[in-house]
Amino acid sequence: MDVDAYLTERAALLDRFLDGRLPPSSESTLAAAMRHLLLPGGKRLRPAFAFAACEAVAGPALGPEAALPAAAAVELLHTYSLVHDDLPCMDDDALRRGRPTVHVAFGEALAVLAGDALQAEAFAVLAEPGPSPVPAEVVLAATRDLARAAGARQLVGGQADDLECAREAPDVERVESIHRRKTAALIGAAVTLGARFGGADAARLARLERFGAAVGLGFQIADDRLDRDAGESCSYVGLVGEDAARARAEALLDEALAEIEDWGERAEPLRELARFAVRRDR
Amino acid sequence: MDVDAYLTERAALLDRFLDGRLPPSSESTLAAAMRHLLLPGGKRLRPAFAFAACEAVAGPALGPEAALPAAAAVELLHTYSLVHDDLPCMDDDALRRGRPTVHVAFGEALAVLAGDALQAEAFAVLAEPGPSPVPAEVVLAATRDLARAAGARQLVGGQADDLECAREAPDVERVESIHRRKTAALIGAAVTLGARFGGADAARLARLERFGAAVGLGFQIADDRLDRDAGESCSYVGLVGEDAARARAEALLDEALAEIEDWGERAEPLRELARFAVRRDR
Repeated sequence: MDVDAYLTERAALLDRFLDGRLPPSSESTLAAAMRHLLLPGGKRLRPAFAFAACEAVAGPALGPEAALPAAAAVELLHTYSLVHDDLPCMDDDALRRGRPTVHVAFGEALAVLAGDALQAEAFAVLAEPGPSPVPAEVVLAATRDLARAAGARQLVGGQADDLECAREAPDVERVESIHRRKTAALIGAAVTLGARFGGADAARLARLERFGAAVGLGFQIADDRLDRDAGESCSYVGLVGEDAARARAEALLDEALAEIEDWGERAEPLRELARFAVRRDR
Repeated sequence: MDVDAYLTERAALLDRFLDGRLPPSSESTLAAAMRHLLLPGGKRLRPAFAFAACEAVAGPALGPEAALPAAAAVELLHTYSLVHDDLPCMDDDALRRGRPTVHVAFGEALAVLAGDALQAEAFAVLAEPGPSPVPAEVVLAATRDLARAAGARQLVGGQADDLECAREAPDVERVESIHRRKTAALIGAAVTLGARFGGADAARLARLERFGAAVGLGFQIADDRLDRDAGESCSYVGLVGEDAARARAEALLDEALAEIEDWGERAEPLRELARFAVRRDR
């Protein structure tokens, strides 16, 4: 399976959906600021996990469109968190993906508001009727997953601790705890949301929760490895060194793949994405 | 009916619920920052509208606890929007309700993050099982109402336009459009969410949507009237004068009350709250 082709195809599907849902840039400066980092976006790895998890649990009758609300919600939430992370009072970044960050392009006030509106839109896209009919209980459970992953004990809590981390001498346990909340929780939500929209039962969801947690942490270790500022931030690689970090990431990948080992051909994109997320060099 | 007593009783019920749900301040600085403006809060007028709308449509068997998820979600969302509005890059306010604003007490980064986490918590509190059983379709519709009211075309869009408003010479239509989105949309959501948790049918919801829109705009006109900085901001009173503003607010109140005129005794708290919101002097 060609991971790059999979990412490209699913990203195109997602981008058309997001472009159709969001207010056009011509409507308001706020709408333009919301679109700035969202379209064009990055690799769309989180949405790809949502599509692949949906595919892994659903029968062949369900097309990739079924996972669109899950994929879009996760990417909207991820994008809002990047917009706020880049703010002068947070990481103070002027560039992201080679382009000016939202506050550089639109000013700080609009960057705060664009992030706020992107988070609201993440929940809107889940709650509104999507391309395929899904029972209300399932959508509600997905909303619950996303709200938890986004909240004070996961994504935002991890970011808050990450800001404090620079002022401490963190140990491995502390860095992993931050990574699990700041990064792995949302990757885990991408997997469970996609699976819910694919009709997963409780047993499969439980296995995918463990899969997502392991891949998410492995993904963040790869991120630390690729980050040139690693020595300055709350970095797993900076703490244990490159070799031990690679070994830990491989162990997490094995742990993740074991959860879905017997799921056959339809889980192959999910496996390949896991390998890509943990071993990537970009 | 004693509006003050009603507000006080419902606020106490809400505060116990919120206090039990949010992480304790001892857990993290982020948790303390989230609680700073939330507990103790303000008048809790939006939650009161949720409780009163629930009561107006439900039978006597349903206690006020039934509306707690709706009331809490609306107050969490309102509080997040205040925390972000107060930021230096927005209104740059140092005090709110006589206490330091969140960024003054905890720093800008934590104020951004606390607001972000409060928004996530608003959706979490709706999606998670509440004190009374409610069909998933109803909760999902409430989530949809809240996400729309919070998004780029309502709350956040109104705030973005309000920031621009200072640099323009706005006309009455423009000011009303901002007020409708920045303030009335969330008051409208408080009413419809409460009514949904009370089991309202589509006909009653449609009437309550018009009720909420009229009361919400009347509330913001009262706010302009009471605001000492009215001359400097995007103010209805500043534009048309005090007498015309009062007349417009009274007309909106009549419009709102007409929608629920024949609803009997159980709608009395909702009527009294509407009168209070539009005519208040504090």
